[in-house]
Amino acid sequence: MPQGKPSVVPEDGLTTRQRRNRPLVFVHTGTGKGKSTAAFGLALRAWNQGWPIGVFQFVKSAKWKVGEENALRVLGASGEGGRVDWFKMGSGWSWVQRDAQFSNEDAAREGWEQVKRDLAAETYQLYVLDEFAYPLHWGWVDTAEVISVLRDRPGNQHVVITGRNAPAELVDFADLVTDMTKVKHPMDTGQKGQRGIEW
Amino acid sequence: MPQGKPSVVPEDGLTTRQRRNRPLVFVHTGTGKGKSTAAFGLALRAWNQGWPIGVFQFVKSAKWKVGEENALRVLGASGEGGRVDWFKMGSGWSWVQRDAQFSNEDAAREGWEQVKRDLAAETYQLYVLDEFAYPLHWGWVDTAEVISVLRDRPGNQHVVITGRNAPAELVDFADLVTDMTKVKHPMDTGQKGQRGIEW
Repeated sequence: MPQGKPSVVPEDGLTTRQRRNRPLVFVHTGTGKGKSTAAFGLALRAWNQGWPIGVFQFVKSAKWKVGEENALRVLGASGEGGRVDWFKMGSGWSWVQRDAQFSNEDAAREGWEQVKRDLAAETYQLYVLDEFAYPLHWGWVDTAEVISVLRDRPGNQHVVITGRNAPAELVDFADLVTDMTKVKHPMDTGQKGQRGIEW
Repeated sequence: MPQGKPSVVPEDGLTTRQRRNRPLVFVHTGTGKGKSTAAFGLALRAWNQGWPIGVFQFVKSAKWKVGEENALRVLGASGEGGRVDWFKMGSGWSWVQRDAQFSNEDAAREGWEQVKRDLAAETYQLYVLDEFAYPLHWGWVDTAEVISVLRDRPGNQHVVITGRNAPAELVDFADLVTDMTKVKHPMDTGQKGQRGIEW
């Protein structure tokens, strides 16, 4: 509920308006469902504000999230709201030459390099770095460098990072962190994922 | 990640396909951000499958969630995917006469009565009962009755209930429960909600 009052008024020299519009880094982590779905829900708000949105899926297989991808493509092309660009590591990214053979580790680094270029160019106002916590957790991409780049990013660019096992340094750095905690999941009782629900 | 194997194969007499397509009840609860946004992210998947979607916002003020509402309206009207109907308690619901004066409690009950009618008629394949955990928690709508209606609902209708303080009986009954646990929120450090992020 956004009508809540902040519990603290910091002595940071900013006006309420300046503080309100400070660009944010979000982390959605934990073992429960909803990390990516909440990130795409956030993208709906950004779209509605007319913000350009860049989605970078840091997963090997690009077959998941088809529902969200199609929905955001339709929204991005609707003539209302913001533009949406969607990039998939699983299909080798769009800016990488087709004949390049990458390890997953190389591919994750290529993704991050492009995010850095886009942040420097202020290409988007919302970045969804889906499942990016994994390459950070595995050490494929250096968490300290990511924090440094995010801290120094220009303009008004919001960044959402999803995935289990988000590194503690990233959690410390981020502005908003939610741990999606699994209380119960149908797979626990033998139910497999189903169309329309899991993808 | 939906490619996971179920940890248990139950002796319920169902085939894997029957079990896979069992309609689900989801609960998104907890004090963190992402409960509603994840529900609307789920609606994107449902939309992409062509499922009719009914959103029932159980909040007094209907001014929030404008981003999600506009996005789902555009999607629902796009000619692709499923139809989306969006109902707001804050504007007095659409099926209630304009001159009716309701308490919030009455309004919450009116909302639930309509959901019951729609479940009986199999109007939708996904129901987003946004913030419905509150009237349950407050005792305005009887949790035992809700569980009974959900248990006996016909056909293949999925239901997502969001909100803090979901009653324990509902959590016990639901198929998938995620507790969105607040690790950190910008309001803790004096930042107010901002356009495009909170609504």
